[in-house]
Amino acid sequence: MGSSSRLTTLVHGITGADPRAADAARRRFAELAVPPGALGELVDVGARLAAIAGDCPPPVPNDPGLVVAAADHGVYAQQVSPWPQTVTAAMVRTLCEGRATANAFAGVTGVRVRVLDVGLATPVQDGPGLCRANVAPGTRDLSVEPAMTSREVTDAVLAGVASAEELLGEGVDLLVTGDMGIANTTAAAALVTAFAGRDADEVTGPGTGVDDATMRRKVAAVAAAVARHREDGPWDMLAGVGGLEHAALVGVILAGAAARVPVLLDGVSAGAAALAAAAIAPASADHLFAGHRSTEPGADVALAQLGLRPLLDLGLRLGEGTGALLAVPILRAAAAALHEVATLDEVTGAGADPAGA
Amino acid sequence: MGSSSRLTTLVHGITGADPRAADAARRRFAELAVPPGALGELVDVGARLAAIAGDCPPPVPNDPGLVVAAADHGVYAQQVSPWPQTVTAAMVRTLCEGRATANAFAGVTGVRVRVLDVGLATPVQDGPGLCRANVAPGTRDLSVEPAMTSREVTDAVLAGVASAEELLGEGVDLLVTGDMGIANTTAAAALVTAFAGRDADEVTGPGTGVDDATMRRKVAAVAAAVARHREDGPWDMLAGVGGLEHAALVGVILAGAAARVPVLLDGVSAGAAALAAAAIAPASADHLFAGHRSTEPGADVALAQLGLRPLLDLGLRLGEGTGALLAVPILRAAAAALHEVATLDEVTGAGADPAGA
Repeated sequence: MGSSSRLTTLVHGITGADPRAADAARRRFAELAVPPGALGELVDVGARLAAIAGDCPPPVPNDPGLVVAAADHGVYAQQVSPWPQTVTAAMVRTLCEGRATANAFAGVTGVRVRVLDVGLATPVQDGPGLCRANVAPGTRDLSVEPAMTSREVTDAVLAGVASAEELLGEGVDLLVTGDMGIANTTAAAALVTAFAGRDADEVTGPGTGVDDATMRRKVAAVAAAVARHREDGPWDMLAGVGGLEHAALVGVILAGAAARVPVLLDGVSAGAAALAAAAIAPASADHLFAGHRSTEPGADVALAQLGLRPLLDLGLRLGEGTGALLAVPILRAAAAALHEVATLDEVTGAGADPAGA
Repeated sequence: MGSSSRLTTLVHGITGADPRAADAARRRFAELAVPPGALGELVDVGARLAAIAGDCPPPVPNDPGLVVAAADHGVYAQQVSPWPQTVTAAMVRTLCEGRATANAFAGVTGVRVRVLDVGLATPVQDGPGLCRANVAPGTRDLSVEPAMTSREVTDAVLAGVASAEELLGEGVDLLVTGDMGIANTTAAAALVTAFAGRDADEVTGPGTGVDDATMRRKVAAVAAAVARHREDGPWDMLAGVGGLEHAALVGVILAGAAARVPVLLDGVSAGAAALAAAAIAPASADHLFAGHRSTEPGADVALAQLGLRPLLDLGLRLGEGTGALLAVPILRAAAAALHEVATLDEVTGAGADPAGA
């Protein structure tokens, strides 16, 4: 349930990355005028970009697009966040005005920004860069009932697919995930707890800063939600404990994977969405990169399960896509090296291999 | 000794960063529409940029310039590297042709590249982006005699100063250090060992990949060199155990610090040069950022002594400035946030502080 025929077609079209292209990239790196091993993690990044594109060298992602999926959360009623719920809509307005942190970072890294209202509780006016697909004015309270109906979760995923496909149609060659939603680390923790089969207190973190009492309410809400959905299939699990923006990010991931365009994840909400996407379409995980290590414990759990290692660890815990945005140049650099760097033979002629290496 | 009047004037002109500008930046960050602490290390980066510029918000470094200082090393005769010494000149040609890894990364991050021949043993032809200031055809063997004369070390530092000042004159607003020199991790280890007062075997690392026998020769060469110069002043220490490219990077650092332009360090050679620069002009350390964690143990020792923490840790050990280049967007992002991001009051009006934080 929960899946439309459009989604079924999309999911069936997702295939794994191409290991031959990854091997070709590793061989190419080994030929470059670089000491063995000196490119560190950039080799993995380049090989995975090649595997995603099915081509070596892979295209350099020169036109990335960020989707900031924004929504509110019924579980806010459980006092799991110190912030007023209206901050979600206020930050959506700020993102559309180009004055949020994600806008500043996107300007620095050359990324276009799309803001997706997939479930704000507070209506916002139309603005540049805003895509309105308000499926519901926030989720229901996941601690007492399923957060979304099957229709809502499908519509939210499809809203993410539509945003991603619109960007891809404009020539975007790298999708970056962002999220905005007061209380959404509670839903993210519930998703990771459910999809990774962990306990709520291992996975739930402080989010944007909560005191001990709030933290206890958060863990209790997550535990209550997950207890109802432990045995569910992925769609019911996502609908039961997730957020509308997590569902939208599932759509972004599925659309990127289907198009063989890399998807660069930010933070715990993206990790939670990626776990759900991998449960729905296992091959989607091949198309993901983790931009930044989140301080939320759920993010580490999600990334470990997905086999992803974050590229940056700068202590950011802001959301909006900020951590992923700062990792964009690393992906570009790995691809550019495969295109542009001379081989050792070209540089030194034959016989210049290291004598002792 | 070792210092010309030009250098004396430069060193005397170096003053510390401005703590009031740093405080102003921290206050500004605290007002932004961002949860407390959510910007992680970006707050320190932004505050230090403000302190260097003496202004808040600090200028966004939109026009960085990389100086790749290249030279050869007499200690190569001790078989401390598996690579042919001619690779130094071959890589300088490749850098000038725009086909080295640093060129690819500089293209991605919008950094102009200047290659400085401050002491190649193999002559190279003029090329675009090449600055010829060949002080000597490589150093003498630091394991048996002082690597440079006092005249040579002064000239090499001045060559670095001239390269940096030329870039600054062209409008460069962030200096990035790079290095190229077969066997230069031996000289870098000797500099860190000497300036940090450590033992050779704590500091010396495998560089671009050496076997156990080579590694033992490397440690022995470093220990022999440092034993002769333990009690020296900074100029004799630098001349005694350093490389011409390390001396040139000292010049780049001093010129950046004197101009209050941030200097972004790459790897162990830059860390070694920064230790020497800090011994000559202690306030110069205020103007430095560490771009990337080097796998060479000497780099950690140098950065710890300088109070710097590297922004990236991607396992690179290539030199050329590659690790620092990938950190450029992080500096830009921190400065851009101080310029562009709305305050919490602007976003939500009064009274929207987190209730529980």
